[in-house]
Amino acid sequence: MNEFSPVDDGDVAVRIAAHDHVADIVEALNDQPRDAAIAALNELPFEQTVDVFDQPDFDDAAEIMGMLPRDQATRLLSAMSVDRAADIIREFPDDERGAMLGALDPMLRHTLLNILGYPEGSAGSIMTTEYVSVPSDWTVARTLEHIRKVERTRETVYAIYIVEPTTHALLRAIGLRRLITGAPDDKIVSIAPDRQPVTASPLMDVEKVAQLITKYDLLAVPVVEGDQILGIVTVDDIIDTMIEETTEDVHRFGGMEALDEPYMKMRFLPMISKRGGWLCALFLSEMLTASVMQHYEVELEKAIVLTLFIPLIMSSGGNSGSQATSLVIRALALREISLSDWWRVALRELPSGLVLGTMLGLVGVARITLWQHLGFYDYGSHWYLIAATVGVALIGIVTFGSLTGSMLPFILKRLGFDPASASAPFVATLVDVTGLAIYFSVALVILRGTLL
Amino acid sequence: MNEFSPVDDGDVAVRIAAHDHVADIVEALNDQPRDAAIAALNELPFEQTVDVFDQPDFDDAAEIMGMLPRDQATRLLSAMSVDRAADIIREFPDDERGAMLGALDPMLRHTLLNILGYPEGSAGSIMTTEYVSVPSDWTVARTLEHIRKVERTRETVYAIYIVEPTTHALLRAIGLRRLITGAPDDKIVSIAPDRQPVTASPLMDVEKVAQLITKYDLLAVPVVEGDQILGIVTVDDIIDTMIEETTEDVHRFGGMEALDEPYMKMRFLPMISKRGGWLCALFLSEMLTASVMQHYEVELEKAIVLTLFIPLIMSSGGNSGSQATSLVIRALALREISLSDWWRVALRELPSGLVLGTMLGLVGVARITLWQHLGFYDYGSHWYLIAATVGVALIGIVTFGSLTGSMLPFILKRLGFDPASASAPFVATLVDVTGLAIYFSVALVILRGTLL
Repeated sequence: MNEFSPVDDGDVAVRIAAHDHVADIVEALNDQPRDAAIAALNELPFEQTVDVFDQPDFDDAAEIMGMLPRDQATRLLSAMSVDRAADIIREFPDDERGAMLGALDPMLRHTLLNILGYPEGSAGSIMTTEYVSVPSDWTVARTLEHIRKVERTRETVYAIYIVEPTTHALLRAIGLRRLITGAPDDKIVSIAPDRQPVTASPLMDVEKVAQLITKYDLLAVPVVEGDQILGIVTVDDIIDTMIEETTEDVHRFGGMEALDEPYMKMRFLPMISKRGGWLCALFLSEMLTASVMQHYEVELEKAIVLTLFIPLIMSSGGNSGSQATSLVIRALALREISLSDWWRVALRELPSGLVLGTMLGLVGVARITLWQHLGFYDYGSHWYLIAATVGVALIGIVTFGSLTGSMLPFILKRLGFDPASASAPFVATLVDVTGLAIYFSVALVILRGTLL
Repeated sequence: MNEFSPVDDGDVAVRIAAHDHVADIVEALNDQPRDAAIAALNELPFEQTVDVFDQPDFDDAAEIMGMLPRDQATRLLSAMSVDRAADIIREFPDDERGAMLGALDPMLRHTLLNILGYPEGSAGSIMTTEYVSVPSDWTVARTLEHIRKVERTRETVYAIYIVEPTTHALLRAIGLRRLITGAPDDKIVSIAPDRQPVTASPLMDVEKVAQLITKYDLLAVPVVEGDQILGIVTVDDIIDTMIEETTEDVHRFGGMEALDEPYMKMRFLPMISKRGGWLCALFLSEMLTASVMQHYEVELEKAIVLTLFIPLIMSSGGNSGSQATSLVIRALALREISLSDWWRVALRELPSGLVLGTMLGLVGVARITLWQHLGFYDYGSHWYLIAATVGVALIGIVTFGSLTGSMLPFILKRLGFDPASASAPFVATLVDVTGLAIYFSVALVILRGTLL
């Protein structure tokens, strides 16, 4: 972060003038205050400015574009890759968006409106229309000649789509590496792999597209409606999407709404509201623990020693639940398991919980026995019953935690929510209330007639 | 999962014989018991068997290769891509590994031993030596001719590395798309971008390589020692690595060691040990809460009403901590912030914690006031002091939770650990002990002379 902006302006312009990779230029610009960034951009040749705006990592691209003269902005948008232009226009305030679109070439406007029409997070919304497709009756030589001509205006030329000459229906896909090994007079369709290309539908979830690209090791996947190609999604877009999705998942697993901006750039109040919402919801649910405690108040007064282990026992339930949830969220995301496998998972988590609970239970009993015998603390003459209560409660609570934690993502998915919304704090809250009830119930059974 | 194996064997062999994509064949094989998978593999042409073993998604590849006749295994390993062959050999038991390597061609053995020598998780350990490099005095035509010849044996031909003709020092990198637009007689070095190629060192962490590939939108990055190329890491490898890393991060954030196998395939005892280790460690640390409670036993007996809010207050600290940790882990992973930014983060989390804590505190006070006035529960004549204790304690605990949660990843990173080891349960445990101490200290100040 540069805090001496006026002096450094020239410095930056110099620093980014050389043969720097565009990604490094973008990084330098991102570290500048907005005015300095615009000044530095104005020093760049037009081609390089286009490259900068083409980088999804360029922060505040829409705001900065909005501050440029309208005709410069229009020229930039026209020269940029279509998918990235759509991204930027999507960020414009509603009133500016119309004006900006109106200033563009009608064909480009039509394409952009098409992409903007697809819901965010769909293949259609991130696709580019700048791909290479050729009729199936072309030869290798003619195709290569075509690629040489259009190369500069295509996001990728490594995947080439072969279409039916009159209907333009997608027939085959071929990689450039295979194409260049063909003889010049070969019909392109004769050297393409004899297989239906892997395709995505425009409404397909981006995560699903990422899975297709990963599974089939593709550099791009065509977005197809009926038999017509609408555009392609490239591996770059997918990597960016995967990083964003991971960030969202981590934030949500941490028990909050996903921030959609970098942590240090997010303004204070929006951040507080994204965190405060869940925090309050969890707090209100957790209030049930106070009600449970009130319910057992008589027992608490008789055996105050029971309160000593409440935090220990509750947290064990939450921890085992959090483990199980993280396992199941990830297995669902990787499609290792599907919704219908819930009972298989339950049949694994039940014995897991029992074994883990028994382990913790034994440690708990050992601790109470040790403290009692070493004289660190006197749990009273019925200390062994207290130890038994803690041990048995731990078995019950850890088992319950593992089961609840593992089933919660399934339940959310069944209800149509993202299973990754099952956060660690959410599971802990669910388990806390029941955990207390389990603890006091066990205590009532074991301590009846002695302490209770 | 197919549970009628003997009858279906033929079925599978038929199902995977057609023009299926290798990824689909792998998926079908993974769903079969091992014997059926081997039987089906034996039905495949050799080329396709190689393709199957080349897929990182093919489960138990090393075990299955170990069950094949030695000469078949040797032929497969020689025909596979080098990086994947190294992966498989790495999984062999120590005694078999030597025998298998000994049966290979000496050149291949040398290459594999080289790759196997790099530590897991390093660029060297996942690189392939099957890349295209050409001397800088070659023309475009000669380079294309070379690529046509070697295409089948190279993992990618889309990135071409230009080396000094005698020293083989890496000079430039050029994409195939740029190459094919050149005139046949152009010297290749004259049309390559005039820029040092982005490179990785063999010991560079794979995550760092992924960041390079993402940042510079590369299809491959060369692994370089001194000025010599040792191999390349491709975008496919990186996507696989990113998915693995995300799984590890989610598991660890859930409070356990990362499973390195799919959940449903992992055997029971290894899974228990990966979960039980952390669960016990957390349990032992959490035992400090019992000690804190014992310390305040006199106060607890005098004002048993205080115990009612212990779970509520503790969980609020854990939740706010978990949120802050997830934010900082992700921001560190994305390099939005670095180690030296810890104080900036602390200066953000302090006011965040105060605001969020005040929100929860007000809700808590409202709840106690409401219950008292509506007659749901009688907190005694000093109910307003109890409410004040809960409110003030919440401010303190949520602030402390946000600060601790945000600083923990920095501390771990500073100590040389992965910041992503800061799990939600870890933070909760840290915050619980201090949270109780804060609660009782606040109670001592506010309730002294009345309840205490």
